[in-house]
Amino acid sequence: MKKIVYLDNAATSGKKPDNVKKAVMKTMENYCANPGRSGHFLSVSAQKAVYEVREKTAGMFGISKAENVIFTQNTTHALNIAVNTAGQRKKTVISSVMEHNSVLRPLYALEEKYGVKTVFLTPDFNNTDKFGEEVIRKIDRDCGAVVLTACSNVTGSLLPLKKIGRVCREKGIIFIVDGAQAAGHYGINMTENCIDMLCVPSHKGLLGICGGGALIVGDNFTEKINPVLMGGSGIYSVKKQMPDSLPERLEAGTLPFAPILSMGAGIDFLKKAGIEELNFRSTRAAQRLRELLGNTKGVTLYSCHGNIVLFNIEGKESFKTAEMLDRCGISVRSGLHCAPLCHKALGTGKDGGVRASFGWFNTPSDSEYLWKCIRNYL
Amino acid sequence: MKKIVYLDNAATSGKKPDNVKKAVMKTMENYCANPGRSGHFLSVSAQKAVYEVREKTAGMFGISKAENVIFTQNTTHALNIAVNTAGQRKKTVISSVMEHNSVLRPLYALEEKYGVKTVFLTPDFNNTDKFGEEVIRKIDRDCGAVVLTACSNVTGSLLPLKKIGRVCREKGIIFIVDGAQAAGHYGINMTENCIDMLCVPSHKGLLGICGGGALIVGDNFTEKINPVLMGGSGIYSVKKQMPDSLPERLEAGTLPFAPILSMGAGIDFLKKAGIEELNFRSTRAAQRLRELLGNTKGVTLYSCHGNIVLFNIEGKESFKTAEMLDRCGISVRSGLHCAPLCHKALGTGKDGGVRASFGWFNTPSDSEYLWKCIRNYL
Repeated sequence: MKKIVYLDNAATSGKKPDNVKKAVMKTMENYCANPGRSGHFLSVSAQKAVYEVREKTAGMFGISKAENVIFTQNTTHALNIAVNTAGQRKKTVISSVMEHNSVLRPLYALEEKYGVKTVFLTPDFNNTDKFGEEVIRKIDRDCGAVVLTACSNVTGSLLPLKKIGRVCREKGIIFIVDGAQAAGHYGINMTENCIDMLCVPSHKGLLGICGGGALIVGDNFTEKINPVLMGGSGIYSVKKQMPDSLPERLEAGTLPFAPILSMGAGIDFLKKAGIEELNFRSTRAAQRLRELLGNTKGVTLYSCHGNIVLFNIEGKESFKTAEMLDRCGISVRSGLHCAPLCHKALGTGKDGGVRASFGWFNTPSDSEYLWKCIRNYL
Repeated sequence: MKKIVYLDNAATSGKKPDNVKKAVMKTMENYCANPGRSGHFLSVSAQKAVYEVREKTAGMFGISKAENVIFTQNTTHALNIAVNTAGQRKKTVISSVMEHNSVLRPLYALEEKYGVKTVFLTPDFNNTDKFGEEVIRKIDRDCGAVVLTACSNVTGSLLPLKKIGRVCREKGIIFIVDGAQAAGHYGINMTENCIDMLCVPSHKGLLGICGGGALIVGDNFTEKINPVLMGGSGIYSVKKQMPDSLPERLEAGTLPFAPILSMGAGIDFLKKAGIEELNFRSTRAAQRLRELLGNTKGVTLYSCHGNIVLFNIEGKESFKTAEMLDRCGISVRSGLHCAPLCHKALGTGKDGGVRASFGWFNTPSDSEYLWKCIRNYL
């Protein structure tokens, strides 16, 4: 069998813990039913299992209301709801060039739809604290919302959420955070960081399977959130609109049952193993690669942090390097990583870069193997 | 262990075939990657597996273009996209009272958004052919689209799609069909029936797991379909809008990988066993219940067809009957089934009815057991 070194954990976690697999199997065997759609034993059991994941998710992100955890198809779905809510204020939005297209495209659409403009600030990738101050300086009376990623999917840079969040809370500005890369890798306490809406995926740092995500609404956020999808809600069927109550208002149609339970199992795994311990492992493995590539002539290593390593081989298009690594059994992702403005800011706007993103199961020897392959290629 | 007779297949299929379970496991073991998000071996294998399901789905519903199969979170998500496309014409929509809230609520929203009105026609539940003629009679110059369910989730009534579709095609009217209940139970050929957009779930008649669905666009439909969700598309990352090409235009963010593959495996199972054979089994089991309940004093049996049986015990609220059956280990669904106008038309608009919906694995003895429980209860 081909040796595979999976280093594309920023796209999806490459190894699902056993309890995650078991949780998925349970949805097909133990309570094979539609959660929340009937009153019978199986459907109620399924619904209880879903509710437990709401509670776990709320606990993990530091809010108290389980009903404020809205399950979605993916982070993108959650971000569309959140960004539209920002747009309804019809005031300027502050964001950054670090954002993924899941944030950028809904923001561009706001301009078309409501004439709402977004200011995209460029951070110093090595000093994001300074960037926090710049965001705060830009906040003025015209600003209705701040939309930022917690962690760049290109560079792994972390933003100073607490600092920005507190100013937003003070000034009554909606603070929306894209947790696609940070959730599960770092603790995010929404209450402490004054986050109004946090969007997370089931399948990356939370170690579940693809097909789920959540929009998590802060305990104190009271603004009406409008659904982007409408349909059956299981309750108040006679009403012509979606119900007012959360989570039903924003959960139209059948829920992604297995992805939700897998995410719950992933959270259990993270709690047991310890987020910090797992993050230590992936960061240590990534750090080894940074050390090796940083000292290799012919390799450009970009400013990158945590579990992410971004580089290029001089004179080679990023996808060529990724192809070579794939032939060695190493899975990395090249190109723009759906974050065109970020690559532009890094000077890699044309061909992008090679991203190796590490998971809890990766080791420094994975980095050493990758480095050897690069050396043979140079 | 408690005896369970699962008769809620209209909510989700209560037994997943073994090959469906295996397909789900494969997404966690064989190619645990994000399909279409990288160029490495695992992601490409995942993408190929997804593409095979596009092809199978296209084949199953009689279209030739695999790229016209757009994967969604659920049928509701697909219907939101389809109904919004209908609304963009800013002309009247013709629909029926048989529709689910996944059709009704997006239609109501069109009125608010574009001033687009919908005419909801009431069928003769025993003579849907006649209803087809009525729909055709109502089609005039102001009509931009017809949106209909292929099969009622309350009564199992089938609509004469071909008759209506041909008239729509002739007159340039968009024909949208909700296949939530029909897909997998009956063959639906979009080309023969002149259907422009068909919306189906992964987890009902197609026997996959919850969390997936598809919007299937007819080979000849050329009108621009706008996404309701925007985000990363894996291609054309520099573009500010979603790409123009299908399916990428309408698939924002990570796809529900396991639900998609489970649906593909479900289609394989249906092909092997034969849709007609499986439908024969579920209908035979349901027919037995109709015979038994039809001859039971104190039971009101409503006009119902195929794998669905709708009834009430006189003087009992539907949920009370369902509760009693649940105590006997029988899973049915009571209430309005997210189809308030349909129940109103049936005269059960207040408390709804008890719906037993049969699957391929149910037998006439399941019906006999349910009937015995009802008799003991009367």
